[in-house]
Amino acid sequence: MKLGDGVEQAIHAVTMMAALPDDGVMPAADLAEFHGVSSSYLLKHLQSLSRAGLLQTLPGPRGGYRLARSPAEITLLDIVLAVEGPEPAFRCREIRQRGPNPLPQSMFTAPCGINAAMLRAERAYRDELRKVTVQALLDGLTAEDRTGDIAARGCAFLQARMRHSPPRS
Amino acid sequence: MKLGDGVEQAIHAVTMMAALPDDGVMPAADLAEFHGVSSSYLLKHLQSLSRAGLLQTLPGPRGGYRLARSPAEITLLDIVLAVEGPEPAFRCREIRQRGPNPLPQSMFTAPCGINAAMLRAERAYRDELRKVTVQALLDGLTAEDRTGDIAARGCAFLQARMRHSPPRS
Repeated sequence: MKLGDGVEQAIHAVTMMAALPDDGVMPAADLAEFHGVSSSYLLKHLQSLSRAGLLQTLPGPRGGYRLARSPAEITLLDIVLAVEGPEPAFRCREIRQRGPNPLPQSMFTAPCGINAAMLRAERAYRDELRKVTVQALLDGLTAEDRTGDIAARGCAFLQARMRHSPPRS
Repeated sequence: MKLGDGVEQAIHAVTMMAALPDDGVMPAADLAEFHGVSSSYLLKHLQSLSRAGLLQTLPGPRGGYRLARSPAEITLLDIVLAVEGPEPAFRCREIRQRGPNPLPQSMFTAPCGINAAMLRAERAYRDELRKVTVQALLDGLTAEDRTGDIAARGCAFLQARMRHSPPRS
């Protein structure tokens, strides 16, 4: 089981955007530069986050990305599902119905217990991700940063690269 | 996030082997035939299950596979980790340390809060899988099978294909 690298990039980018002032937007290329990742790869994930309603895209030379709602209203689950898609990790192929001497499909109305057990675990995973908001991540990153230097580096970069855009409608 | 198809196949194969009598073993080819899956692909997963200590491999013309311990002592987590490997789904690349104006590595002694949150969810997932034994799966499959026909088909196949091997040491 493996999540794509895009998940880590997306979470970090969203957390950085959570620190933007109200009129601030960040270009994708700058978000990529700060995180040392491929700009085209990150752009793909930013677009997925936009499609999922987590980011706003402001076009034009002063454009960029910003959160579409408050960081307290975006969870890790929202980000993971936006980047990885909504399907559960375990995808039942109903192999119980295959093989020699097949039985009529009507005998398999009860869901396969194996699938049900795997989906219970997926639910526990998602419940845990749903508990963590981007605001909590940002607060945690600040708390871990005893000297304040990590936050200062991020803030300086934001200040230097962010663009000022029309306030939210 | 996606688990390989091998996980479903491995769980079904292990659950079928849980129904073997004490001296019974099943050849990989028959397990594959019953589940309508590629024999070489299933074999790869059976070998992973053996390496993880979940199956015993009995070589020779009367050989095959059987569980290495009681079905009450094998969990879904054992099977998933044997097939997919022990790494968590989220693999932190420490991208917080990348980018321009890097800070000294010594400033990043606290684990990244994003990684920590993702690992908490992984733990919840694994805890849930650890709760489900192969014995419980087998009991559940029997309970779901109102007419008994699904179990009867499986048992008939086992009876026809299993081999009798020396008892466990």
